[in-house]
Amino acid sequence: MVGDGSILITGGAGYIGSHTVLVLLENGYDIIVLDNLVNAWKDDSVQIPEVLQRVERLSGKKITFYQVDLVDKDGLSEVFKQHKIDCVIHFAALKAVGESCQEPLKYYSNNVSGSITLFKVMKEQNVKNLVYSSSSTVYGSPEYLPLCEKHPTGRTCTNPYGKSKYFVEEILRDLVTSDKGWNVISLRYFNPVGAHPSGDIGEDPTGTPNNLMPYVAQVAIGRRKELLVFGNDYDTPDGTGVRDYIHIMDLAEGHVVALQNLLKPSSTDRFNVFNLGTGRGYSVLEVINAFSEVSGRKINYRFVARREGDIAVSYCSPNLAKDSLGWTAKRGLKDMCEDMWRWQTKNPNGFNKDQQPSE
Amino acid sequence: MVGDGSILITGGAGYIGSHTVLVLLENGYDIIVLDNLVNAWKDDSVQIPEVLQRVERLSGKKITFYQVDLVDKDGLSEVFKQHKIDCVIHFAALKAVGESCQEPLKYYSNNVSGSITLFKVMKEQNVKNLVYSSSSTVYGSPEYLPLCEKHPTGRTCTNPYGKSKYFVEEILRDLVTSDKGWNVISLRYFNPVGAHPSGDIGEDPTGTPNNLMPYVAQVAIGRRKELLVFGNDYDTPDGTGVRDYIHIMDLAEGHVVALQNLLKPSSTDRFNVFNLGTGRGYSVLEVINAFSEVSGRKINYRFVARREGDIAVSYCSPNLAKDSLGWTAKRGLKDMCEDMWRWQTKNPNGFNKDQQPSE
Repeated sequence: MVGDGSILITGGAGYIGSHTVLVLLENGYDIIVLDNLVNAWKDDSVQIPEVLQRVERLSGKKITFYQVDLVDKDGLSEVFKQHKIDCVIHFAALKAVGESCQEPLKYYSNNVSGSITLFKVMKEQNVKNLVYSSSSTVYGSPEYLPLCEKHPTGRTCTNPYGKSKYFVEEILRDLVTSDKGWNVISLRYFNPVGAHPSGDIGEDPTGTPNNLMPYVAQVAIGRRKELLVFGNDYDTPDGTGVRDYIHIMDLAEGHVVALQNLLKPSSTDRFNVFNLGTGRGYSVLEVINAFSEVSGRKINYRFVARREGDIAVSYCSPNLAKDSLGWTAKRGLKDMCEDMWRWQTKNPNGFNKDQQPSE
Repeated sequence: MVGDGSILITGGAGYIGSHTVLVLLENGYDIIVLDNLVNAWKDDSVQIPEVLQRVERLSGKKITFYQVDLVDKDGLSEVFKQHKIDCVIHFAALKAVGESCQEPLKYYSNNVSGSITLFKVMKEQNVKNLVYSSSSTVYGSPEYLPLCEKHPTGRTCTNPYGKSKYFVEEILRDLVTSDKGWNVISLRYFNPVGAHPSGDIGEDPTGTPNNLMPYVAQVAIGRRKELLVFGNDYDTPDGTGVRDYIHIMDLAEGHVVALQNLLKPSSTDRFNVFNLGTGRGYSVLEVINAFSEVSGRKINYRFVARREGDIAVSYCSPNLAKDSLGWTAKRGLKDMCEDMWRWQTKNPNGFNKDQQPSE
């Protein structure tokens, strides 16, 4: 099942990265994690960040960890020289849409230049298997629903975060066209939520959460007073925005099957793109209600004006991943809320136990 | 007319860069040139490349030159710290379409990551006036003609060179949206040809020329046996591809008016895009015939199959630059050929007199 080399995970201390690392370890893969830790908490007295210590405990396996930034080409090369690497799963990126509009250069530098540097090192070291962490934001404003992989990309991306994901997909497309040695799968995530069922790892946003579910959870636990719902006049059943939420464990499992597919000796694919979503949309109010029910807490919320750049409805067709990878999301909204709530109640302030709750 | 600071020119030792530097010097601007010299010849015994020595002689002015690569952030910052810079004109880029398909990472790294690094340094040093060297390739395959600035970009770019130009335009668009201190003009060049009328500076392609006119000139001078004409079955009057050629001196003057516009105290524009072309298309055969007439030489050519990715016809509407900048191309095809031929005959092997002619 597993080759004799390791899987290198960039951004492996992040939300999606850490859950994927756990599932990969459970599947017998040897894992090397790179992370610059700008969004992960680490006690200076220990060698690896708290989240990966927990992943090690949950899996009973060891992780090789390097604190390296992707723009540090020499540091990156060194890691490749010290290990036999079969494949890279590239999560490392900044991901706050709002911040990307305020600081586009930071996003383009980290997400685009960082990826280019990674790909250059991979090419130099002859490691040409890659799973790329893309996003449904590359579709921009949907021309039709459900969003399938053939939907145009890039045309209506309204923020630098989404554009950075689109640019890197295009770079990868050109890369595999130029060199048939490359074998790349780009996974377009819809809206990852939830946590590992142990409640020991989960999303730990720094500052104000940018996404709905972590915000709802922080209101439920009393860390924030109320949720602002941006727009209740959309053309949707209850007027609030509809999104395709996917359980983080489904998403993590999607990476494992993508990796298996990529490393199959028979694999002749070179550049493939797959949506990872459930294919089912839930409105903001449905999420709030489900979370309220699961947690037994009242979620205070208030309707405010629409947020610029937000779209009414987004959900995917998950058929291609089902047909090609044999992968399908198994967990529903209730699982997402339950696991999220368990993580939140066990870790009201995230990974850093000394952290002061912030509003 | 001129501010008290300097104009920083990246890629100032290149074809378009060097002609622009000359015209800027003649207009009284103080010029600092950055170039990594990957495409410019320099005698190791002198401090600046041959082309800029000639520009100094032609203008009677001095140029401050630094051999710096844009990916070298520290080297770049140092230049900004040592000078008061009013504006950057950013030419530095790799530009061979064919090579960009074979080595996309090289192009994305140089053209995109290099630009991002430059913009980061500019932001840190609070230099936010920029003229960007874009290209008509951002339009991809024309949906209509003439190509005006509102034509969609990026959708059908078929090569990494063109995409790199498109990506950087998008990055600049996001940058000015995020920070009203920026003031950016992006100039979309059509097909620059010709040379300074002195014949002392001109295009000096390394290896096989990628563009028509330098190839024609090298056939005329006997450095190459024949010209391959890619396709004579296009839907054009004579079956060969039609392009909007623009004299390099017109193009250089376009940069001066763009710069003047940008530095006007009344300037409230923040991101503007202008085509720089004549608005008139010439076919490959028209160019060959004009060059043959001007040079008095027979140009051997042979028709071969179309080249993948090539389009039949491309020419611009130059009206926006005329209306907004008061700029219009003055020189015709005959001038382009005459000046090109003078450069070629005076410098059969380009800037390096010791260079062996290569086929």
